[in-house]
Amino acid sequence: MSPVNLAMVTDEILFNLATAVGEHLQARGLTLAVAESCTGGLLGHWITEVPGSSRYFVGGIIAYSNEVKQRLLGVPETVLEQHGAVSRPCAQAMARGVRERCQAHLGISVTGIAGPSGGTVEKPVGLTYIHLAAPEGDWWEAHRWTGNRTQNKRASVAAALQLLYRYLQGELTAE
Amino acid sequence: MSPVNLAMVTDEILFNLATAVGEHLQARGLTLAVAESCTGGLLGHWITEVPGSSRYFVGGIIAYSNEVKQRLLGVPETVLEQHGAVSRPCAQAMARGVRERCQAHLGISVTGIAGPSGGTVEKPVGLTYIHLAAPEGDWWEAHRWTGNRTQNKRASVAAALQLLYRYLQGELTAE
Repeated sequence: MSPVNLAMVTDEILFNLATAVGEHLQARGLTLAVAESCTGGLLGHWITEVPGSSRYFVGGIIAYSNEVKQRLLGVPETVLEQHGAVSRPCAQAMARGVRERCQAHLGISVTGIAGPSGGTVEKPVGLTYIHLAAPEGDWWEAHRWTGNRTQNKRASVAAALQLLYRYLQGELTAE
Repeated sequence: MSPVNLAMVTDEILFNLATAVGEHLQARGLTLAVAESCTGGLLGHWITEVPGSSRYFVGGIIAYSNEVKQRLLGVPETVLEQHGAVSRPCAQAMARGVRERCQAHLGISVTGIAGPSGGTVEKPVGLTYIHLAAPEGDWWEAHRWTGNRTQNKRASVAAALQLLYRYLQGELTAE
């Protein structure tokens, strides 16, 4: 379901991914904003581990509560009621919301259940949606991580950076 | 100038600080929001490393660019022009802005120069302002970290969590 190997998400890999993404963004004059739920800021942290990241990273929103998802990202209440915060429609609204509100070229979101609690039969611990909103369209992924809370957050960050990298490499075609 | 020893900011210490802050917030029914510039999301990450942190952490804003500081946190343009983004007035506006916009009881901000570049004679690399906006008033600190980019970010997170902890312990009196 995912190319991310939980045991392989080292600090070095995250830094190298963030560096590669940053180089592409800078070369193409693109800006990036993040909307983070379950990762709680860890994606922004890794993006800003790269010196000079202020040239392409504008910031973003840590939308941990549903109220913040609605108020600051404009996620519709109906999306939360009908699909829940961990869903593709919510991830989409978060990515599009942060892209618009931060006036960035690209918006990327992560929403999932990091664990150890909070899972259900339909939405187990580890279920995570990642959504990229770009000028040409949207791309998204669903994952189900099987690590602990910290590992699941790190895997989500790696997957988000990989999705950005594939987009910037031109590997993603319009849906 | 600071009780934070750069070499001592281990993962265990950050997790223990975040856990202690979380226990106090939960016991008192208080909510928290963060406004992060130089830490890029690392403060939110550590707060959300604690399982159950959604009971008191609502989220926040990663305000890396000045445009996001203005647009999403309401930092006045005059503050940025007269004092710069790394200043006590900017940290204050960030903390008050995130507290109001996330409708949290407490808002805490971090703005600084993580390095390795971006420093000046007046504002050297490592200079960091931390500001807490609470119902009873505001408290702030200035630090000058002497580590590398990663160390400076981690020291800022430790100092922000320590400031919150001291506030929650009742150690800070109204200014």
